[in-house]
Amino acid sequence: MISTPAYAELVAVYSRIHRLSHAAAILSWDRNAMMPPKGNAARAAATAELHGLIHGLRRDPRLVELIRRAEDEPLDDAARANLREIRRDWREANALPETLVTAKTVAGARCEHAWRSQRPANDWAGFLENFRQVVHLSREEALRLAESSGLAPYDALLDRYEPGMTAAELDRLFGDLRRWLPALIGRVREAQRGEAALTPPGPFAVSAQRALSLAVMALLGFDFGAGRLDESAHPFTGGVPEDVRLTTRYDEDDFFPALRSTIHETGHGRYSQGLPRDWLDQPLGRARSFGIHESQSLFFEMQLSRNRAFVGLLPPLLEAHFGARPGFDADNLHRLATRVAPGRIRVEADELTYPLHIVLRYEIERALIQGEIEPEDVPALWDARMEALLGIDTRGDYRDGCLQDVHWSEGAFGYFPSYTLGALYAAQWFAAVRRAVPDVEARIAAGDLAPVFDWLGTHIWSQASRWDTAELVRRASGTALDPAHFRAHLEARYLGAA
Amino acid sequence: MISTPAYAELVAVYSRIHRLSHAAAILSWDRNAMMPPKGNAARAAATAELHGLIHGLRRDPRLVELIRRAEDEPLDDAARANLREIRRDWREANALPETLVTAKTVAGARCEHAWRSQRPANDWAGFLENFRQVVHLSREEALRLAESSGLAPYDALLDRYEPGMTAAELDRLFGDLRRWLPALIGRVREAQRGEAALTPPGPFAVSAQRALSLAVMALLGFDFGAGRLDESAHPFTGGVPEDVRLTTRYDEDDFFPALRSTIHETGHGRYSQGLPRDWLDQPLGRARSFGIHESQSLFFEMQLSRNRAFVGLLPPLLEAHFGARPGFDADNLHRLATRVAPGRIRVEADELTYPLHIVLRYEIERALIQGEIEPEDVPALWDARMEALLGIDTRGDYRDGCLQDVHWSEGAFGYFPSYTLGALYAAQWFAAVRRAVPDVEARIAAGDLAPVFDWLGTHIWSQASRWDTAELVRRASGTALDPAHFRAHLEARYLGAA
Repeated sequence: MISTPAYAELVAVYSRIHRLSHAAAILSWDRNAMMPPKGNAARAAATAELHGLIHGLRRDPRLVELIRRAEDEPLDDAARANLREIRRDWREANALPETLVTAKTVAGARCEHAWRSQRPANDWAGFLENFRQVVHLSREEALRLAESSGLAPYDALLDRYEPGMTAAELDRLFGDLRRWLPALIGRVREAQRGEAALTPPGPFAVSAQRALSLAVMALLGFDFGAGRLDESAHPFTGGVPEDVRLTTRYDEDDFFPALRSTIHETGHGRYSQGLPRDWLDQPLGRARSFGIHESQSLFFEMQLSRNRAFVGLLPPLLEAHFGARPGFDADNLHRLATRVAPGRIRVEADELTYPLHIVLRYEIERALIQGEIEPEDVPALWDARMEALLGIDTRGDYRDGCLQDVHWSEGAFGYFPSYTLGALYAAQWFAAVRRAVPDVEARIAAGDLAPVFDWLGTHIWSQASRWDTAELVRRASGTALDPAHFRAHLEARYLGAA
Repeated sequence: MISTPAYAELVAVYSRIHRLSHAAAILSWDRNAMMPPKGNAARAAATAELHGLIHGLRRDPRLVELIRRAEDEPLDDAARANLREIRRDWREANALPETLVTAKTVAGARCEHAWRSQRPANDWAGFLENFRQVVHLSREEALRLAESSGLAPYDALLDRYEPGMTAAELDRLFGDLRRWLPALIGRVREAQRGEAALTPPGPFAVSAQRALSLAVMALLGFDFGAGRLDESAHPFTGGVPEDVRLTTRYDEDDFFPALRSTIHETGHGRYSQGLPRDWLDQPLGRARSFGIHESQSLFFEMQLSRNRAFVGLLPPLLEAHFGARPGFDADNLHRLATRVAPGRIRVEADELTYPLHIVLRYEIERALIQGEIEPEDVPALWDARMEALLGIDTRGDYRDGCLQDVHWSEGAFGYFPSYTLGALYAAQWFAAVRRAVPDVEARIAAGDLAPVFDWLGTHIWSQASRWDTAELVRRASGTALDPAHFRAHLEARYLGAA
């Protein structure tokens, strides 16, 4: 056995980071799903203590030398890939001066906190006051990250969420979408005109919805020995890969939102549960990126659960939990799940219009970071792009316009593209599954989802951060990311032009 | 303002310990109330990391010098009391060599793990093999603690759970009990002979029991803004003072166990919620002792909730949650709650026989630690004392005899006396409440529990570790701990000889 002392020391440091991150992750889940309000101050202090410890480990000056020495040590390929991820983590943790991190955290928290009341009040002017500082510090952040990474400033922000992704590549991908998606939406809306879909009548008892969620998660292969489902105001996937904590939210009048969010989070959850056991305490064992994570949730939510074959599995489940009701037949459920209607709100958007909400945000935030526009220019640009992309007049409506998302208030620029990258990846995965398992839809219709999960487990989950994203995509699907898969999927599903 | 740099530094260290302990406490609650089984290994590693950090802070060699310097600094009385508790914490953390701590942890974990299957198998011989090592290491531990504290070895173990308590004092207290309690039990059993009590017929839906538990906690003043109730295999009070986590366990056939355990844990919970806000991050703000903690749970469970005046509040609550059923009248409920029947199992014992279970354990564990008996002598001694104290023949029954408790398997010697100290303290508190609020029983009967909680809040909860235990008892009740209050309480409740 070759001795690799510097690498071994790095592994020990990251193993420690993993253990402290476990504690922080469970505390965070608890705060969002369990904690009563008066626990907040003490929890914030405890969490800050943990993050301070983790931060200190990631910024330990000894790491520079350890990484340098490890690079000269004889490592196998996996260890070398882990070292690459360690270096990446080190760079990210050390790129920004503490003063800037603190200033941005404070400004983001202030802006986000005020946003909570400014949004319902449609108060753009009030928001703008805080937002200017957030944009100013985010630009500064982008410049510093650019210096340390050698990337362009906006690319350096993107890189935090989607390593390797660039504005040039997004222009290619989103430019492609913009060429055909608006027209496709028009054709689909035309085709759906006059089509009747019946909304099943409520109410739907929360206890029955909870049981349905658990049944659907079981169907989707979620391991309840290594995770659980609870409730929170905003559904999320938290916890740790060894113990994945999903949440959902129930609405007595409508079971669809909880069902959809449960399926979506189960996609995130199975990715976490499928990460390689032997590498969980190292950067190599982490999920590849936000876009790849979203490709799993959207694979489950869009590719799989709105597939006509899968929808055929729902009626007996719905009847078992709610009793027989009008509208529970598969054709009707499928019509409801594929109804296209442009609207103002991203999080309520359907599969076809959602990407255009993202394209709009990408264009605006990139221009903001690059200094091509100023914060006060956002509403006019928002209105113009909403009109152009979705044919919707949002003038004067900040609340359901440019104030609708929390992301920018906190300065999370570079995050939005992940959502649509996830949709593109997911379509590419499903196309690859179909090539690998030609009768996949018959298998799904028979309730046999194993071939689908086997493919995802082999090609995505178990690969974690073994490869950079582009290489992961090539190894999984044979080619680079290509929006043609997404387009073919949408045309097949919405126009029957498979 | 006088500068007290050493004391201020100690406060900062303990504040940090408090934050890390917050994380460890929530993780522990989660493990027992929420965590799925496969999360265990990662959780154990994360928890060990946190405990290692806390342990490192408590054993930091700099503390010796800081404590020494702080003692010469000008401090107000509260700060000086805090420094006393810091010194105590330092001594406890530094009294034992790491090797001994580790060896005992390993031996205790092995013995406890094997005990889980040895107990149901009635396998004393198998248990003895591991138990010998646990006793050996516990004796070693007692000797080391005795060296550092100047106490006798068994007293040094007691001191960890009940600071200041000694075997000599326990001999006085428990000797008193032994003189009159067995005879009292005989008289009560005679008086109860032929007395009819009707067990209300089940089943009792878990959801209704949960709602009842929450209603009773609300009646008992639990602050749900700073805590919650969940379920676990063994009910406990966990979490942190700012966010108290209680658990209970429901049995569909019988609502009494969950109701009793909820009331018991609510006593622990209100003590935690009532600790002084300004001192929560310091040793001064911690609960005084295990016995004082138990005095709160037993005050709620025994003194308050089995008081005839309180029992009168239950029928409408029970009917609201379960519908009208036979046996829900207050007289019957009170008969059920005061039924005396000697049995083998401590945790199922009634208010009168429970202390004798503790006296027996105290006598055996003290003799074990002092080397007067060896581990193999335990069963014979157990049988003899059970026969003498409770008139029960336990020969050959290890399962429900000396193997029934988990405590000794883990080497938690010195813990058992806390239970009965709690009962004695609780009776003394209630006597003091009655002196302070002469119409307290009428107030309770009217559902007005505020005077009771005000007294506990003022005299116990808010005092935390401000005084040593003996001083706390004197300040709260006017005298030292005196079993006469317990005796008078039992005679009044069980023989109507008030």
